[in-house]
Amino acid sequence: MKKVVLGVDVGGTNTKLGLVDGEGNILAESSIPTPANTSGVSAADFVKQLCEAAFVLQHQPSEAFEVIGVGAGAPNANYSKGTVEFAANLPWPHEVVPFAALIQTYFPNLPVKVTNDANAAAIGEKVYGGAKSMNDFVVITLGTGLGSGIVVGGRLVYGCDGFAGEVGHIIMIPGGRLCGCGRAGCLETYVSATGLKQTAFEVMSHRYFSGKSLLKAISFNEITPKYIADAAQQGDSMALEVFEKTGEMLGLALANTVAFSSPEAIFLYGGLANSGDLLLEPTRKSMNKNMLKNYCKRNAHGQIVQEANTQLRLSHLCNKNGAVLGAAALVWHEK
Amino acid sequence: MKKVVLGVDVGGTNTKLGLVDGEGNILAESSIPTPANTSGVSAADFVKQLCEAAFVLQHQPSEAFEVIGVGAGAPNANYSKGTVEFAANLPWPHEVVPFAALIQTYFPNLPVKVTNDANAAAIGEKVYGGAKSMNDFVVITLGTGLGSGIVVGGRLVYGCDGFAGEVGHIIMIPGGRLCGCGRAGCLETYVSATGLKQTAFEVMSHRYFSGKSLLKAISFNEITPKYIADAAQQGDSMALEVFEKTGEMLGLALANTVAFSSPEAIFLYGGLANSGDLLLEPTRKSMNKNMLKNYCKRNAHGQIVQEANTQLRLSHLCNKNGAVLGAAALVWHEK
Repeated sequence: MKKVVLGVDVGGTNTKLGLVDGEGNILAESSIPTPANTSGVSAADFVKQLCEAAFVLQHQPSEAFEVIGVGAGAPNANYSKGTVEFAANLPWPHEVVPFAALIQTYFPNLPVKVTNDANAAAIGEKVYGGAKSMNDFVVITLGTGLGSGIVVGGRLVYGCDGFAGEVGHIIMIPGGRLCGCGRAGCLETYVSATGLKQTAFEVMSHRYFSGKSLLKAISFNEITPKYIADAAQQGDSMALEVFEKTGEMLGLALANTVAFSSPEAIFLYGGLANSGDLLLEPTRKSMNKNMLKNYCKRNAHGQIVQEANTQLRLSHLCNKNGAVLGAAALVWHEK
Repeated sequence: MKKVVLGVDVGGTNTKLGLVDGEGNILAESSIPTPANTSGVSAADFVKQLCEAAFVLQHQPSEAFEVIGVGAGAPNANYSKGTVEFAANLPWPHEVVPFAALIQTYFPNLPVKVTNDANAAAIGEKVYGGAKSMNDFVVITLGTGLGSGIVVGGRLVYGCDGFAGEVGHIIMIPGGRLCGCGRAGCLETYVSATGLKQTAFEVMSHRYFSGKSLLKAISFNEITPKYIADAAQQGDSMALEVFEKTGEMLGLALANTVAFSSPEAIFLYGGLANSGDLLLEPTRKSMNKNMLKNYCKRNAHGQIVQEANTQLRLSHLCNKNGAVLGAAALVWHEK
């Protein structure tokens, strides 16, 4: 039987499952709805549904697979303890859910690993993606919020408590935009799907006399990152300014990130990363501008050029089911 | 013969040498002047003086020591390459000096390690100080500038190029105070001996009508951190505000640092750290206030308390020759 790892990506709306081989091929996949956070569904019941769906996947009419481990990415997951703790977007916002232990009851004697989605993406990048030959790199996930997986010396940084790597909650502007975490000015309030919308409305609030813009024709509730990106692609100057400002903030945060761990590359992953050069170019410009000289390139004469050594790249997993791959890589990585 | 490591601390004014045993005792020590950066002394000549002074130490009239390795802390040192690169405060600001290789010629066949002073302080804390049982911690050195040594999973973070850990050059205030690195708003322009002086003058510039202060009686050239600390100890309200503001900025930066690597403790080391509670208390207050809830304590009912899990402590090496100990620990650590 073909050996596979069950990769699980617990999202706010859907939970995806995939059987992944050692080369990063997803041989079978499915999904179940994640229960709404008002549903009252218990964690034990959700894990039961999840594992039953996995058994169905495992025993295909044409082929059965040998599952050799389970890797799951979930919000607020703690790798060290195997828990999902106080996850605001899941039905257990006030609980410490023993997620790995619950899964383990369905897969006895197998390794079961749990981590947050950004850490899973980082391990996926290392095992299957653009970081195969790298020991020091960072993956930034740009979705509703901003997550980060930091790899140092070939290993994920978990910190003393399993919760390290919350670059989205670096305070960039003391007293700035209100954040879901209860504080203000966090990076993710500026750089994320939500942050992009807010910046669109900030730009409109500042530029009353600057003419027509597609942004002016849509409500806060209706506007999406894709709408703003489409407008920018059409040359809408306000939409372009939104990406310029977003990249400026992200580039500064990445320059600061380099001053911590001096990574070989930083990979952008997730919905916003799909806007490609619209976000990448202003981010690179700002990252170069704000980079400490120690981390800059030198020209043929040995003189410093104000350009970062650290590469800024899109994740190689952007167009694949990267979160499922990353979750499975948690187990394959340690084989 | 007693086995010792030669620990070297290359400072801007003096270079200290010590013979250090495995328990962190300095069995013999001396120092030589560091050549001024206008002196024209070559790196080779300086290393010759240094090693000759070491040989004198090694062969005491009463006892001879067996040197089993050399560890040196120096500004702008690169651990991976053994170099000192473009060090603005040494006589070779435009050179990549092969520092370890030069020392090696005097100590053939022995391990020779070079790193920056903050990394050396971090290793010293791990081997001899308060971090003996810790795998994740950060040491912040507060001198003329602000340095940092970041330990993750028991190992120093060097990054892809040997230059990681420049927390002093995190940009805190875009467009803020001008920094020696050529950029603006770096943490060390606010939190360092120099930053403290600048903050004293900023406070005076804002508070003309707020009465007498010892700060008003001294020039920018003459004021020292000790003068400001002495004034604060006497209850001088402006001097107290200087420490309050300095701690507020440092606490915010440390809360951001925790969001990277979630260390068990952060140790403050160096001149400014000697001001003790004057700096420690406002720093702790700000660090607690700005800490992401994930990294906060819980009370007996499991509710989050706005207080950091990460301990803020003074270095255990503050009253010892920590830089020499740390440099020697570079070699002992790998035994």
